[in-house]
Amino acid sequence: MSVDLANLVTSIAQRARAASHVLATAPSEQKNAALAKLADLLPASADTIFAANQRDLDAAAANGLTPAQIDRLTLTPARLEQLAESVRQVAALPDPVGAALETRTRPNGLQIEKRRVPIGVIGIIYEARPNVTIDCAILCLKSGNASILRGGKEIFHTNTALAALVAEALAAADLPADAVQLIPTTDRAALNTLLKLDELIHCIIPRGGESLIRFVAQNSTIPVIKHYTGVCFVYLDEQADATIAESVTVNAKTQRPGVCNAAEQLLVHAAAAPKLLPRVATALIAAGVELRCDAASAAILTEAGIAHTPATADDLKAEFLGLIMGVQLVDSLESAIATINRDSSGHSESIVTTDAAAAARFQAAIDSAAVFWNASTRFNDGFEFGFGAEIGISTDRLHARGPMGLPELCSYKYVVTGTGQIRE
Amino acid sequence: MSVDLANLVTSIAQRARAASHVLATAPSEQKNAALAKLADLLPASADTIFAANQRDLDAAAANGLTPAQIDRLTLTPARLEQLAESVRQVAALPDPVGAALETRTRPNGLQIEKRRVPIGVIGIIYEARPNVTIDCAILCLKSGNASILRGGKEIFHTNTALAALVAEALAAADLPADAVQLIPTTDRAALNTLLKLDELIHCIIPRGGESLIRFVAQNSTIPVIKHYTGVCFVYLDEQADATIAESVTVNAKTQRPGVCNAAEQLLVHAAAAPKLLPRVATALIAAGVELRCDAASAAILTEAGIAHTPATADDLKAEFLGLIMGVQLVDSLESAIATINRDSSGHSESIVTTDAAAAARFQAAIDSAAVFWNASTRFNDGFEFGFGAEIGISTDRLHARGPMGLPELCSYKYVVTGTGQIRE
Repeated sequence: MSVDLANLVTSIAQRARAASHVLATAPSEQKNAALAKLADLLPASADTIFAANQRDLDAAAANGLTPAQIDRLTLTPARLEQLAESVRQVAALPDPVGAALETRTRPNGLQIEKRRVPIGVIGIIYEARPNVTIDCAILCLKSGNASILRGGKEIFHTNTALAALVAEALAAADLPADAVQLIPTTDRAALNTLLKLDELIHCIIPRGGESLIRFVAQNSTIPVIKHYTGVCFVYLDEQADATIAESVTVNAKTQRPGVCNAAEQLLVHAAAAPKLLPRVATALIAAGVELRCDAASAAILTEAGIAHTPATADDLKAEFLGLIMGVQLVDSLESAIATINRDSSGHSESIVTTDAAAAARFQAAIDSAAVFWNASTRFNDGFEFGFGAEIGISTDRLHARGPMGLPELCSYKYVVTGTGQIRE
Repeated sequence: MSVDLANLVTSIAQRARAASHVLATAPSEQKNAALAKLADLLPASADTIFAANQRDLDAAAANGLTPAQIDRLTLTPARLEQLAESVRQVAALPDPVGAALETRTRPNGLQIEKRRVPIGVIGIIYEARPNVTIDCAILCLKSGNASILRGGKEIFHTNTALAALVAEALAAADLPADAVQLIPTTDRAALNTLLKLDELIHCIIPRGGESLIRFVAQNSTIPVIKHYTGVCFVYLDEQADATIAESVTVNAKTQRPGVCNAAEQLLVHAAAAPKLLPRVATALIAAGVELRCDAASAAILTEAGIAHTPATADDLKAEFLGLIMGVQLVDSLESAIATINRDSSGHSESIVTTDAAAAARFQAAIDSAAVFWNASTRFNDGFEFGFGAEIGISTDRLHARGPMGLPELCSYKYVVTGTGQIRE
């Protein structure tokens, strides 16, 4: 790659690092003033934004975007107002920085405070969703982190227009312009340089499809927090309430089938299946779901005259992200747990049961970010959990797992106060 | 590399993953029983251990070990008793697993518990210290994690003997033997395979010198928690108490100069330097320290007739790990902060001052894992912080920063209980 490009990216990271030191101690009021300004600028700059967005839309077909991708790329007045509203909401959230997470006094009199602080510099690597530009910039800013944004080429003009507004809002609040920077090229070589700057950038969050996340995880020497999509299971226990079994399964599968916390797989306890499965299957089919069944579940549905197709082995651990569901019987709670811990992606699983002991065992033994009892997997979400905002749902186990709100965008440090203590 | 070797390492990781599911819900009593058994086995198996250790010692010179490395490799009856005692101490610590870190009830009635759980499978990559084998095995076991240990070839026979005792202790407590596994080869290709098994291993902790840590960080697709050594600063403020300035600086520099939380660099406020620096320098020299001074500090010491050498630019940000200290004057608190945030490694820094406002500014603005006021940097340590044990001192910002005790070897999951809630 060109030396100039490497120098450009390195310079951006160096300036982000310098800005991060200012942001780390910026008062909440100053950060909120920048956010308030940005919320005003977004609708006020609609013409500029739409013109930039139109340039990206004009190139979308040539860029090979699907209709769904073009839809996500498109900014409308309503979506712009949603963006402004999300900025106002983040401004209204409590500042996570500076909280004393723990305090202790040692026998020698040392006072130790574990204090929440920003991570430092966060790189966001994403594709063609303009809301990611604003969401990530504001969540990083609110949590005192400098951010470096690298969106896809399909969204380059929109991003450039949005980044200019963020810079204007930062300047209005007397915060460093380098606090939020957009990489001004979508050259892949620039990304590769960025992912190796582990001395300057402290965390990479890729937002996008699995191939993007895998590319980033494989090529980054900076720690990456991954947000993979999910192979989520619903398990109907021997003692499941039939009404809850039906409503939770249908909701988990169909309420928004293309997202990560939608259910993909249904397990039914064999002893309860003759009673439960026909009812649940009928409701799923009524909602448009194709059922791909193992032999045991297929036999019950055949007996009941309910449509289904045979499952391949892959179907029973697949992420369909659409109106298809794998179905299989298990002969025990332990078998359900073993199946889920083997074949789920560790995202969101649910047990439906009236048996509190079975639920406790399931919730203890299932190794997933969120484990539900008598509730839809669709609740694994920062807003639904009451976090007020989220930058994504982590499928990692280190640092953050599940919905990542503002506190999860922070690290901590130990602030230790003494009276001259020395170590013996 | 050979297919057999890749299969061997993969099989170890698969069995570790299976064991991790058992460990995750193992009662505290069962884990503690294994630890108690191990504490008994260590002294009881002294002959076997010393014989294995002697094989490694016999090869040490041929392996190119330095006298200091050979010393660290050597097991003695006293060191074996220390190891057994450390096992007993970890057994006595509270079990970190299962604690409810936060609970909340949502308006729709969902009860959300953030519950501490083990990370899963942890890989420990280390060199030639037998205490790492035992320390890491017991800390992972206590925190419910399966561990895979990969020590250097210089310690292979000792490790094999120690791992056999761990296996015996696990069996005595009816825990899976695969909960702690030693990679039975020191072939570098096996390590390279291990570092790519991100589907099975959740965290890698390298324990050793900087080159080992860099190798692991560069080659792992598994998240790595790094424990680099430190370029730690002591700053003597304009309002420093001279007695504390002397004792803290001497202690931070000389109490154990070869470790990561020892001070390497001294900053002195120019206005206080004529009074403070001669006294502190004299005490440092009396303790055997060579002072490498910038021009301004050198002028004061020359005036006072105190020995010193001129510093190169590198000297003023170096990690000496010995009885050498960089010395420079700064003209303000802000200049001290900027110097430290630029040139320290973010490990441990200390301000000496009687000015509470200066201390508060320093502790807020310094971006290091531990920031001390009127206390030695040497206190940045899990035992000194009261954690009861530590697996190291993280220089990372994600997941864990500073001393890592048992809670830092854990992740969390959300346990959500409902009454049939579905998402609208």
